[in-house]
Amino acid sequence: MSDLTTQPTAAVLIIGNEILSGRTQDVNLNHIARKLASIGVRMAEARVVPDIEGEIIDALNLLRKKYTYVFTTGGIGPTHDDITTDCVAKAFGVEVYEHPEARALLEAHYKPRNIELTPARLRMARVPVGTELITNGVSGAPGFRLENVYVMAGIPNIMQAMLETVLPTLRHGPAYISKSVSGFVAESAVAEGLAAVAAKYPQLDIGSYPWKREDRWGTSLVARGVDRAAVDAASAEIHALVIAIDPSPTMETSP
Amino acid sequence: MSDLTTQPTAAVLIIGNEILSGRTQDVNLNHIARKLASIGVRMAEARVVPDIEGEIIDALNLLRKKYTYVFTTGGIGPTHDDITTDCVAKAFGVEVYEHPEARALLEAHYKPRNIELTPARLRMARVPVGTELITNGVSGAPGFRLENVYVMAGIPNIMQAMLETVLPTLRHGPAYISKSVSGFVAESAVAEGLAAVAAKYPQLDIGSYPWKREDRWGTSLVARGVDRAAVDAASAEIHALVIAIDPSPTMETSP
Repeated sequence: MSDLTTQPTAAVLIIGNEILSGRTQDVNLNHIARKLASIGVRMAEARVVPDIEGEIIDALNLLRKKYTYVFTTGGIGPTHDDITTDCVAKAFGVEVYEHPEARALLEAHYKPRNIELTPARLRMARVPVGTELITNGVSGAPGFRLENVYVMAGIPNIMQAMLETVLPTLRHGPAYISKSVSGFVAESAVAEGLAAVAAKYPQLDIGSYPWKREDRWGTSLVARGVDRAAVDAASAEIHALVIAIDPSPTMETSP
Repeated sequence: MSDLTTQPTAAVLIIGNEILSGRTQDVNLNHIARKLASIGVRMAEARVVPDIEGEIIDALNLLRKKYTYVFTTGGIGPTHDDITTDCVAKAFGVEVYEHPEARALLEAHYKPRNIELTPARLRMARVPVGTELITNGVSGAPGFRLENVYVMAGIPNIMQAMLETVLPTLRHGPAYISKSVSGFVAESAVAEGLAAVAAKYPQLDIGSYPWKREDRWGTSLVARGVDRAAVDAASAEIHALVIAIDPSPTMETSP
């Protein structure tokens, strides 16, 4: 991909035993991936780690050096297994303190509900030194940014609200454009033609994704990249490959 | 967790641009996690990497040394972007060859359908030297095992069929047991009590997972481990914490 050097890059670090135990189906990675693609940030890697301090710190220190941005999800709630804040602080070698604005946000959230700010709830006002808060309209408890690391909640609707706060502050690249041609075509039937298209447009990702519908196999052939003219030209060539076999494929463009 | 040394461990390596671009919502990790938990294999980590040779090889070489088993998904089809087989071979420093049994499986699949075994289709008979095939009842193309690395398809129903072939061959640990107490309780309201339970049962994972239903927040409190007596005792204590606030929580046990 020729855009490797110009596009900002990102990694997602999903923190939580519940994903690795199979209790919870993660949906945050997909949401973040789509949002970042729409602003031209290339998602380069994702990891899922358990609630173990050493694992979180090691992954974080590696990812934050390798990519423009790191987004973490999970582990910033009020319970004993919420260790993300302390791990981020240790990864950066800084202290954790009670952030006055975070405390004020929690007070504003709990006071009208006549709920006491217990020590457990106040845990959610603790952030590493040097942090900027990431507010959200759903819960009182903020996420935070420390350098290029964005620490967000694991609960999808709260995470999504935090991401909306963050997106306008990120360095954008040219947005990714994706064109897909889907037909009742075995991917092996178009493999050679597709390889030729991929070789001709090295600046694009050319992908092939089989599926089954009404007991028949088909394939979606996707051209993706930031060079709109190349995406258009490649997908026209892919369309020609497909209609030789299925005369009425469906086309999709995003965004 | 006291069972770290006795339970076999596993990592999942998800290979595919389509997951990182947001085109595809991964569901394989969750399926593998549940199946492994049921036979007492501890899923310790997961990674998603793009279709880039160096990234796949580096991740694979790290994970296969760190964990008892590594399961890869994706990248073993007939198209140019299916590079998993070659990457696995390079990671192990072995050659790729056309496996006679894999070729026979493809012939048995395509011949009755009057479909020609083109070079693209024959790509799916290529495996690293030293490999054992992983057959599946859904498609002709097999996955394969090389030492502790299990290379499987990315299409969920094919991956699932391959995993069923593999599961009986794995070293089992004591199965994980999980008990969950769910009620209309803020997690911050039980955080202190829950921390005490977690401290009392260090051999268990004690987790807290908030949710929203009919516009009300609740929490699922989970005790999980391989020590059934401890899971029972801890979840009785958790139940007591919850009924002090919500007198009719729901209980769930798995498996």
